[in-house]
Amino acid sequence: MDQGSIPTSEAVYKLIQGLSKLPGIGPKSAQRVTYYLLHAPEEQVKQLSDAILSIKQKTKLCSVCFNVTDTETCLICRNEQREHGKICVVEQPQDVPALEHTTSYHGLYHVLHGAISPTEGIGPDDLKINELLERLKSNKIDEVILATNPNIEGEATAMYLSKLISPMGIKVTRLAMGLPFGTELEYADDVTLTHAIEGRQEF
Amino acid sequence: MDQGSIPTSEAVYKLIQGLSKLPGIGPKSAQRVTYYLLHAPEEQVKQLSDAILSIKQKTKLCSVCFNVTDTETCLICRNEQREHGKICVVEQPQDVPALEHTTSYHGLYHVLHGAISPTEGIGPDDLKINELLERLKSNKIDEVILATNPNIEGEATAMYLSKLISPMGIKVTRLAMGLPFGTELEYADDVTLTHAIEGRQEF
Repeated sequence: MDQGSIPTSEAVYKLIQGLSKLPGIGPKSAQRVTYYLLHAPEEQVKQLSDAILSIKQKTKLCSVCFNVTDTETCLICRNEQREHGKICVVEQPQDVPALEHTTSYHGLYHVLHGAISPTEGIGPDDLKINELLERLKSNKIDEVILATNPNIEGEATAMYLSKLISPMGIKVTRLAMGLPFGTELEYADDVTLTHAIEGRQEF
Repeated sequence: MDQGSIPTSEAVYKLIQGLSKLPGIGPKSAQRVTYYLLHAPEEQVKQLSDAILSIKQKTKLCSVCFNVTDTETCLICRNEQREHGKICVVEQPQDVPALEHTTSYHGLYHVLHGAISPTEGIGPDDLKINELLERLKSNKIDEVILATNPNIEGEATAMYLSKLISPMGIKVTRLAMGLPFGTELEYADDVTLTHAIEGRQEF
């Protein structure tokens, strides 16, 4: 029986329950947010409620890159300043802001919405792979950067895509793997260290 | 510039901003929740949005104890099984579920909605103190447990209340102070250790 289950208010109980279902928010944190909102200005509470409702109603997938957007084509695809000859392939919409935040990439994106995973029953047809191939056929693309996650599923997906795209005469690259910044060599795992050795570059 | 400020969707941006304002939720966590809700079932998103809206609209303060409730009088005040001769005085509504969770208290509550704090300009008249005194006068109360926080403001409030209530011939008690369970004596602060020594009990 958690604290939220002894309420004097059903409204309080329901909100604690609802918030507890969100990733990274435990019952204590849900309770804290609930009591905060009880005392928050009416306007802030209304705005948050509306923002949550809008997240499903107002967003769609960009018809070109399948990133989340409010419009038919997303802001990145419509931006003439960006390098339209490069496509960075990512697994999820949230990978786009992570890469954008580095400000070191200026091309376009393609969101697969997942990775190939036989154990979870996710095959190539469940991802936006055909849409990517169509895009590569009907546009002048000179580089595809495979930015799937550095894990088994992401690697398998990158391998699969590489085999399909390389024969089209398009340069295919993969994000570098190696030691993450700020860590100590002593604590690096074997796979990371192997990548770091094999991918070593001239100083 | 945080990650949330490079959106391709205004709806995504607004929700990340809104969630980031909540206590204990940083921009990374807000982003994670936002992308989770993007993929969550419509029903769950609707329910959460409604629960947030309801928290202000459906709740009120109990007319007796000033705890948060959906009804005129809260479930605890209406419960005939509880000891109506005891009142536990707390600072905030969220203190009630914390004490209820212990299942070691079966009396009633009184929520002050704050503590006396000259530095923040909060005096006795800003709290539900007059309402508490009225309650003590018009009901047969044999014990008032002062469960304000064990800090300067909470102590000052308990002291103030004690001076008002004791002359009424009502037993006034204070939550025990001492070492918290699971800690090590070595790391306890001086005030806690002093309380532990002064409040020592026969074994």
